[in-house]
Amino acid sequence: MRLLSIECFDTPDEAVRWCRDVRSQGLSLGFVPTMGALHEGHQTLVRQAAAQNDRVCVSIFVNPLQFGESRDLETYPRDFDGDAKLLEAAGCHMAFTGTLAEFFPGRLQADGGLQPEFMLDPGPFAESLEGEYRPGHFEGVATIVGRFFEILKPTRAYFGQKDYQQALVVDDLARRTGGPEVVVCPTHREPTGIAFSSRNTRLSESGYAAGLFLSRALFAARGLWLQGERDAQALSSVMRGVLAQGDLTVEYASVRDPRKWSGSEPKGAMERAVALIAARSGEVRLIDNMLLSDPEPCQD
Amino acid sequence: MRLLSIECFDTPDEAVRWCRDVRSQGLSLGFVPTMGALHEGHQTLVRQAAAQNDRVCVSIFVNPLQFGESRDLETYPRDFDGDAKLLEAAGCHMAFTGTLAEFFPGRLQADGGLQPEFMLDPGPFAESLEGEYRPGHFEGVATIVGRFFEILKPTRAYFGQKDYQQALVVDDLARRTGGPEVVVCPTHREPTGIAFSSRNTRLSESGYAAGLFLSRALFAARGLWLQGERDAQALSSVMRGVLAQGDLTVEYASVRDPRKWSGSEPKGAMERAVALIAARSGEVRLIDNMLLSDPEPCQD
Repeated sequence: MRLLSIECFDTPDEAVRWCRDVRSQGLSLGFVPTMGALHEGHQTLVRQAAAQNDRVCVSIFVNPLQFGESRDLETYPRDFDGDAKLLEAAGCHMAFTGTLAEFFPGRLQADGGLQPEFMLDPGPFAESLEGEYRPGHFEGVATIVGRFFEILKPTRAYFGQKDYQQALVVDDLARRTGGPEVVVCPTHREPTGIAFSSRNTRLSESGYAAGLFLSRALFAARGLWLQGERDAQALSSVMRGVLAQGDLTVEYASVRDPRKWSGSEPKGAMERAVALIAARSGEVRLIDNMLLSDPEPCQD
Repeated sequence: MRLLSIECFDTPDEAVRWCRDVRSQGLSLGFVPTMGALHEGHQTLVRQAAAQNDRVCVSIFVNPLQFGESRDLETYPRDFDGDAKLLEAAGCHMAFTGTLAEFFPGRLQADGGLQPEFMLDPGPFAESLEGEYRPGHFEGVATIVGRFFEILKPTRAYFGQKDYQQALVVDDLARRTGGPEVVVCPTHREPTGIAFSSRNTRLSESGYAAGLFLSRALFAARGLWLQGERDAQALSSVMRGVLAQGDLTVEYASVRDPRKWSGSEPKGAMERAVALIAARSGEVRLIDNMLLSDPEPCQD
């Protein structure tokens, strides 16, 4: 008797064999990379993957390469036991984990880190905003995600709009390296408006209340956009005004053209816009993003 | 043995005697008129009254004079049993209720309504917004509140900023009739940002999610204000843009000078501003207001 019909592998080798088997049968494979501590936001990605592919696999790996602050890595929530159930309920067929040494055999340094020559270039979308506040972060993301693409060879890979700049980095990486089609899914929000994030569990009650100002700021910018405002400075200004009402340390609140990424806010009338915010509520760093120019399915 | 130390009276006569006794001892009397279905917002008013007065009394009366729609009157939540405990916990000394006939002895018509000559003029602040969407509402509010002032002779009376226009109407009434000092208290918000309201209990889950857009719109307008925007049209425009993202039927979303009330939005740079919204989420009518120019203690 099996409690779960989902396959769970502790090593990448088994996962690689499973994926090879799927593809050899001519089946499409959807891939959702995660760092565990799964929540409804991940389930939305898995559901989307299950709707568009014959098989879905999920990686559960807290990638040390993308954590600049060791404290953030140490405190990143882990609940591997709860993860499999959530994945199965959302339509996932296989989940796997592994260690950095297993994902990069023979490529680690004596200190346990990856040898620098195997780090991937995160490309032009890694500039500014997250790239500025988390130096090396996107290099770490690109390196692990590029490695997953290389060994699993998925048909499509799924990322959330909440981490919009990351989705741009990964999409660019996939295009440059012949990787999968990258699908960016709408942000899944809690009924309060806050984007689902594993970090939310680390927020105190007052920290959570402050965190709500990120989505409030995005709704405000989108409200201005809907009223015809097309100037990046005006759009980011209202976000800063909203964020100032919360007990937050704002790192950035900015607007970019999602197709013509630039190191600073574009001048002149925008045709498309994405609003991007990062702020700290106490010790917890929160980010949230919203496409202003596309329909945004709100929390559901 | 008494379970509650608060006095509860079923008729206005007892309440009037209690208040007369308080005042004859030279004690100050704070008064909080309510329609029952009490929540933390009311408790905030009672706490404020208890902090500023020797004694606090609360009326619990679902005033038929102020309900234009009989369905709204019928479905207005009632929980008189739960109310006394909340009042005592907040520092209230006396609560009373009564019937329209008891509050206006000998002044009712055959159909049970008040004879028109006893309805009070709600004054100039009743114009537009609530006055437009709820014809007769402020006349009903002024009439019952004016009657309470007349028979209880409180030192101070307490109202919430959430119903800002009502507070203006009552303040004007008190000044015209030699009534109490009217104290307008900051809006008490749920952690989600929605203002505490008895009507919130009638919202479905999705209705509540839509209702959150009222406070989001107010935070957006206040965000613009904090960034230096002083034009009423620009401030109300962002509110309409935010509200458009929710499943709401907006009645009004407007900005006024709280000291120079006008039937339409002021032109030119404002020195003080209050933002006012009324919208229906399904069958539930919600209103929320925020002073843009004053410090707004957010949810706590």
